[in-house]
Amino acid sequence: MSENQSLTRVDRQLLLEDYRRVRSESEAIAAPITAEDAQIQSMPDVSPAKWHLGHTTWFFETFLLSAEEYYQPYREELKILFNSYYNAVGEQHPRSQRGLVSRPTLDEVIDYRHHVDALIRDFLRSASETRFAESAGVILVGLNHEQQHQELMMTDILHVLWSNPLKLAYRDSERPVSHLPAQLTWHGHDEGLYWIGAEKDSFAYDNEHPRHRQFVHGFEIASRVVTNSEYMEFIASGGYECPELWLSDGWATVQAENWCAPLYWERRQGAWWLMTLYGMKPVDPNAPVCHVSYYEADAFARWCGARLPNELEWEVAASDVEIGGNLQESDSVVALGSDEGDLVGEQPMQMFGDVWEWTQSAYLPYPGYRMNDGALGEYNGKFMCNQMVLRGGSFATPTDHLRKSYRNFFYPHSRWQFTGLRLARDLV
Amino acid sequence: MSENQSLTRVDRQLLLEDYRRVRSESEAIAAPITAEDAQIQSMPDVSPAKWHLGHTTWFFETFLLSAEEYYQPYREELKILFNSYYNAVGEQHPRSQRGLVSRPTLDEVIDYRHHVDALIRDFLRSASETRFAESAGVILVGLNHEQQHQELMMTDILHVLWSNPLKLAYRDSERPVSHLPAQLTWHGHDEGLYWIGAEKDSFAYDNEHPRHRQFVHGFEIASRVVTNSEYMEFIASGGYECPELWLSDGWATVQAENWCAPLYWERRQGAWWLMTLYGMKPVDPNAPVCHVSYYEADAFARWCGARLPNELEWEVAASDVEIGGNLQESDSVVALGSDEGDLVGEQPMQMFGDVWEWTQSAYLPYPGYRMNDGALGEYNGKFMCNQMVLRGGSFATPTDHLRKSYRNFFYPHSRWQFTGLRLARDLV
Amino acid sequence: MSENQSLTRVDRQLLLEDYRRVRSESEAIAAPITAEDAQIQSMPDVSPAKWHLGHTTWFFETFLLSAEEYYQPYREELKILFNSYYNAVGEQHPRSQRGLVSRPTLDEVIDYRHHVDALIRDFLRSASETRFAESAGVILVGLNHEQQHQELMMTDILHVLWSNPLKLAYRDSERPVSHLPAQLTWHGHDEGLYWIGAEKDSFAYDNEHPRHRQFVHGFEIASRVVTNSEYMEFIASGGYECPELWLSDGWATVQAENWCAPLYWERRQGAWWLMTLYGMKPVDPNAPVCHVSYYEADAFARWCGARLPNELEWEVAASDVEIGGNLQESDSVVALGSDEGDLVGEQPMQMFGDVWEWTQSAYLPYPGYRMNDGALGEYNGKFMCNQMVLRGGSFATPTDHLRKSYRNFFYPHSRWQFTGLRLARDLV
Amino acid sequence: MSENQSLTRVDRQLLLEDYRRVRSESEAIAAPITAEDAQIQSMPDVSPAKWHLGHTTWFFETFLLSAEEYYQPYREELKILFNSYYNAVGEQHPRSQRGLVSRPTLDEVIDYRHHVDALIRDFLRSASETRFAESAGVILVGLNHEQQHQELMMTDILHVLWSNPLKLAYRDSERPVSHLPAQLTWHGHDEGLYWIGAEKDSFAYDNEHPRHRQFVHGFEIASRVVTNSEYMEFIASGGYECPELWLSDGWATVQAENWCAPLYWERRQGAWWLMTLYGMKPVDPNAPVCHVSYYEADAFARWCGARLPNELEWEVAASDVEIGGNLQESDSVVALGSDEGDLVGEQPMQMFGDVWEWTQSAYLPYPGYRMNDGALGEYNGKFMCNQMVLRGGSFATPTDHLRKSYRNFFYPHSRWQFTGLRLARDLV
Repeated sequence: MSENQSLTRVDRQLLLEDYRRVRSESEAIAAPITAEDAQIQSMPDVSPAKWHLGHTTWFFETFLLSAEEYYQPYREELKILFNSYYNAVGEQHPRSQRGLVSRPTLDEVIDYRHHVDALIRDFLRSASETRFAESAGVILVGLNHEQQHQELMMTDILHVLWSNPLKLAYRDSERPVSHLPAQLTWHGHDEGLYWIGAEKDSFAYDNEHPRHRQFVHGFEIASRVVTNSEYMEFIASGGYECPELWLSDGWATVQAENWCAPLYWERRQGAWWLMTLYGMKPVDPNAPVCHVSYYEADAFARWCGARLPNELEWEVAASDVEIGGNLQESDSVVALGSDEGDLVGEQPMQMFGDVWEWTQSAYLPYPGYRMNDGALGEYNGKFMCNQMVLRGGSFATPTDHLRKSYRNFFYPHSRWQFTGLRLARDLV
Repeated sequence: MSENQSLTRVDRQLLLEDYRRVRSESEAIAAPITAEDAQIQSMPDVSPAKWHLGHTTWFFETFLLSAEEYYQPYREELKILFNSYYNAVGEQHPRSQRGLVSRPTLDEVIDYRHHVDALIRDFLRSASETRFAESAGVILVGLNHEQQHQELMMTDILHVLWSNPLKLAYRDSERPVSHLPAQLTWHGHDEGLYWIGAEKDSFAYDNEHPRHRQFVHGFEIASRVVTNSEYMEFIASGGYECPELWLSDGWATVQAENWCAPLYWERRQGAWWLMTLYGMKPVDPNAPVCHVSYYEADAFARWCGARLPNELEWEVAASDVEIGGNLQESDSVVALGSDEGDLVGEQPMQMFGDVWEWTQSAYLPYPGYRMNDGALGEYNGKFMCNQMVLRGGSFATPTDHLRKSYRNFFYPHSRWQFTGLRLARDLV
Repeated sequence: MSENQSLTRVDRQLLLEDYRRVRSESEAIAAPITAEDAQIQSMPDVSPAKWHLGHTTWFFETFLLSAEEYYQPYREELKILFNSYYNAVGEQHPRSQRGLVSRPTLDEVIDYRHHVDALIRDFLRSASETRFAESAGVILVGLNHEQQHQELMMTDILHVLWSNPLKLAYRDSERPVSHLPAQLTWHGHDEGLYWIGAEKDSFAYDNEHPRHRQFVHGFEIASRVVTNSEYMEFIASGGYECPELWLSDGWATVQAENWCAPLYWERRQGAWWLMTLYGMKPVDPNAPVCHVSYYEADAFARWCGARLPNELEWEVAASDVEIGGNLQESDSVVALGSDEGDLVGEQPMQMFGDVWEWTQSAYLPYPGYRMNDGALGEYNGKFMCNQMVLRGGSFATPTDHLRKSYRNFFYPHSRWQFTGLRLARDLV
Repeated sequence: MSENQSLTRVDRQLLLEDYRRVRSESEAIAAPITAEDAQIQSMPDVSPAKWHLGHTTWFFETFLLSAEEYYQPYREELKILFNSYYNAVGEQHPRSQRGLVSRPTLDEVIDYRHHVDALIRDFLRSASETRFAESAGVILVGLNHEQQHQELMMTDILHVLWSNPLKLAYRDSERPVSHLPAQLTWHGHDEGLYWIGAEKDSFAYDNEHPRHRQFVHGFEIASRVVTNSEYMEFIASGGYECPELWLSDGWATVQAENWCAPLYWERRQGAWWLMTLYGMKPVDPNAPVCHVSYYEADAFARWCGARLPNELEWEVAASDVEIGGNLQESDSVVALGSDEGDLVGEQPMQMFGDVWEWTQSAYLPYPGYRMNDGALGEYNGKFMCNQMVLRGGSFATPTDHLRKSYRNFFYPHSRWQFTGLRLARDLV
């Protein structure tokens, strides 16, 4: 969106189609849960599914429809209720109290969605060329924003269902099984000046700009992500009891929270089980480890005598890899991992999909970074402190939402996202 | 219940009728709210309405049906989910996490109610005389228990609707208006030995037994409860800023919680408003003050140069008053107060209904107190510490649930109940 | 103090002598510790020893010297720093921040004491008869106040030394050893009207007044307090794991605080040790159990099939017992207990000294209670909520500070005081 | 220390002299405060001055003396009490409880210092060439470590004296006054590959290694640090009320902590005062702003339309500046700032001394970073998360402790250090 010029070329028909597709996907994600499930905020970080459905709609209403002269707000109070953090737009219902908003009900929120959808479709069909050219960028941001929330909705639903003592399944079908993963090999890259960040000619968030040069030191990156089997060795060897392996803040968290395994893991009669969107299941040794914090990822890497890649290294390593893998479009709602049968080739595997990969990079502005103007400037820039960058997407990320330059970010203690890791090391 | 012998005389047909009436009243109370409203636990003290509906059903299932040989539990997991605090029955889902139980849904809980109701009705019709005689006491406790929860459900629903930024009304009709209250007069009682507590020949909780003698010192008690108008004078005179008026723990709470008025009160353009079951409304000066803590009741009384009655005094004062007033059966879901037109007679007014009245008595066992046997012994006895006794019932208390010897109890800081006060003073 | 008339008869010379004795005792108590020890506030309930020394001096300066025309405050800032909770006197340095007051230093506080002492002695010698008659009551309160703080200083010093990882001893001499206690017997009292509270003709706090009648039901009280040996049986039998034995708030505290023994107890190689003023020592089985909360005392009594006495019963049982025992004047700074050799006679043993005895009575005003006038009215009355009454004094209580009507009070969760228990039961 | 080879050339006599000088400086810093002041931990981040004196001694005892065969520990318990965070050395007394360690007393800690000092001096005089060569690096680390703690001791003493309601002065002499600062100008640097980090041939911490190349984009940096006068404009213009200026976590902190000015600032009759080591004083408009968090520094820079430099830029800008300025050796214990009379020359002013300057760089390992071996590896590496880099030293930093490559680091919310800021901007 930082380069709106290019969007004048966006085709109305295609945008209409994308709009329809993305918006209905959100409702499809919420379809298997009840109104009661959709109401619950199981911890302050979680938003109720109902809120995600409302907020993504508020986004289009606020940033597109409200600018139209003729527009009458659907319901005045939604302006505050569904504002997440845009101070420039106005007041916000406090994040930690989203679970208290029993009304509008789930059904009423769906009505709100359909009301706004109809108006957006009208707009897309009937706006003048000028007005369309001005607005297409906002719609693109809105759709990308909604796709981000689709993934968040999945992570939040998992937390809600896990917080329920009944440990309900989101999907009732059989959990797919992973194959024995390919052996881990290393892909080397020489030191040098590399171009980093998004090109100007297609959509990207402002935090991926400007494209700029960085000097990257020689490094090697692992051919695949770390598996549950490997992580269980770390646990079994006393990884969670050994302070030398941990960052200081990580070790403090391990002790304060009594961490002894990733989030959602549970010991049952000598075996590890974990909560998934298929319900409580035995840990699949071949699948990628998921729901680890940055602290755990970092400690695991140190235990291996390796480290996490930084985000520049990751982007360099991904430069020749095609986007694809176990992403939202796949049948699975769990990380699956590589396959022994996979050709161990020129390029690392699983760079996209399965689990987001923690990098050793703090989330900071690129040199020359400029926030978007107006309220949308709050989208990314104000979070550039205390968080770490993740790359590559998960099984819940829509394929057309991802980019090689995509920078996701979470606090180093966060574990409820679909987060795993890949190893790296210095080239010596 | 402490005197089951008397219950052998209970008529099956009457009990069936009571059962039907009380059980359907609970569902009627929950009828105006949505499944989303019924899910929410707006603070740890509050239980979701859905939980109240489930727990009261669990009570009959656990203490009556489970004892029957033929009985198959409706759903095994409800045993833990809907156990409130009965350690003798088994494990309990943590109280503070009741809001996380999205399933069973509200509809499923209603099904659970109907399932248990059918079995209880069958039981009442078909049990042998002996079995009926053994069980009638449990059913009576169960119905009284359910009536207690009906009032709690109202208080909790009010808190949930208030926590919603939209401040929704539970009832959409016009709020009834209070009349100018009768002037306050004093009713004196001489010192002497008085009998206190419940008689053996009808139902009462164990905490009202044994009936016993106490020496009560001469006292006077006010003819009516304190009104909003009187309480607003206390506020206006700086009552909330004057530490000398407060108990030490009360003053600490005033400062920590920034109290400056009763719960649910809010200043709007120079006037006091408050949240009621009719929504946000201007404070009615003639109505009884409601939603004050013991600390506030005590400070108000000190400001008046009076004190709160103790529970013995209250019971002595109530001994010749007939039970009746603004109780559950009335049309109103708000405290209304006395009427100037009321005959100021021999007896104090409003002793029953409108608001629970804080007394200066800590909730402690009567001399010779014996807990009920078994799990039902946990009903009352284990709470005999840190709480203060309230007497007289509120607009949400069913008339046939109340007794003159009835001892309600809450922590001195609690304000979300329908709690007010009446003054007393020493007879000198 | 509530009956100042009687104090006109107080002899100046005796009061001077008492003043000297009591004031120097406080300094003697603080003598074995360092300036660093005297600075520390090891938890919010604890006050630094230096603060106790300053506050007791402030009491005389504020309530006596400040009333004299000629008086110049020693140092203006002490008025706030050493005010505990007297709102009528003015602002107070926050209780939880007493440990931050590094200046005045310990030496400076001792200077402050001596400065005020010299002026009080002058006053006592030179005041007119009228002025002396007016003030003697305040001095008596001041001395009793200081004696209360002497005991508090001992309890707080123990907590400070225990909080130090070195577990330092306050006294280096050998810990006295208890003898096998006399067998427990029961002393019965018939129901009837009894006079309760302090007589008017000698000093007592306002909370012991007025002397008044109460109807006491028939009861029996144990001949001695509970021993460590008996309490260890309770622990060994799983007392801390059995919710049925506990008040609801007690059980919540056991779980939240992971209580598994009294405060200061520690398991070392299969044996119980505890922190005492003699340092860490093996638990003496014959000595009274000490540092139990009301919750633990109550649970222990329930486990025995008995209960705690209420304060009326305790006072009735003590009526013919002479004050004496292991009190401040004894050589010991630990509870010692009865002796098998003690004559098991007409009267219960250990009613005074060794450990304060929890009663089942909430700390509430007696019928007809009137607070003292002015700031000293804050001494007792404002704490009449949420606390339980203890009776009988401990090894740290000065003998001439105690009375049979003396009402000590602490929160039911408090354990850092020298608190134990004695059993009672209904007479049937 | 990462390059011990070079240390073989360290001269014994010079090291002895440095040892004597650095060690006695620590005692000089603590000399003006009392034993009570030196005991206090006014918040968890603060360590008592006594602890600093003990811990720096423990460092030499642990890392040097303990390795000697003949050595007997001074007192066994100090091993735990004065271990800060070295898990490889063993257990640690919890950081937040340092204020509870009343013994050893301040005098005893001074004795401990002198005991260790005598042994170290003996060692330096008598160790074999080989042993000396092995150990000189540890001594150098120990002296640098002690210098770091000298600055921390000053910051902690200021916090302790401020926490005392008497707001005591550390130094009684007149506070030096700043002159009108030179006008702010900009120093530009072109993009290019620059060498960053410490050279191998003299002492540096492991986190400054390895020296490596980075591509730095064109930038300009301000000629001096931001003054109180400039910062007061930010406050006056509503900087603390405007969320758009703040990072999201910063704004949350502003609201949670009610920040409206830097730490230690206080509004008195319309003017700003602040706590300094000279006591409470009016804010000096010409002096550098001090005691701002990263969040405040970042918000101020945004308000100016500028940004903070990153640490690479700072190091590039400092490359031709000589180390000197208002550092520990100066007479002042407050930040003073530049002087209008200062020649505005080729180089930025105040790059060293006065206040530490926040940079926009997260504290992360340099490419190729290797922790020191053994316990000393914990010195720096494990803190490489969640903290931001500061550069340049303050008035409390010893001159010979500083380097151009020196990386200090604190959490972005920290304000009790002597922290200020300098502006930067992109070169366009």
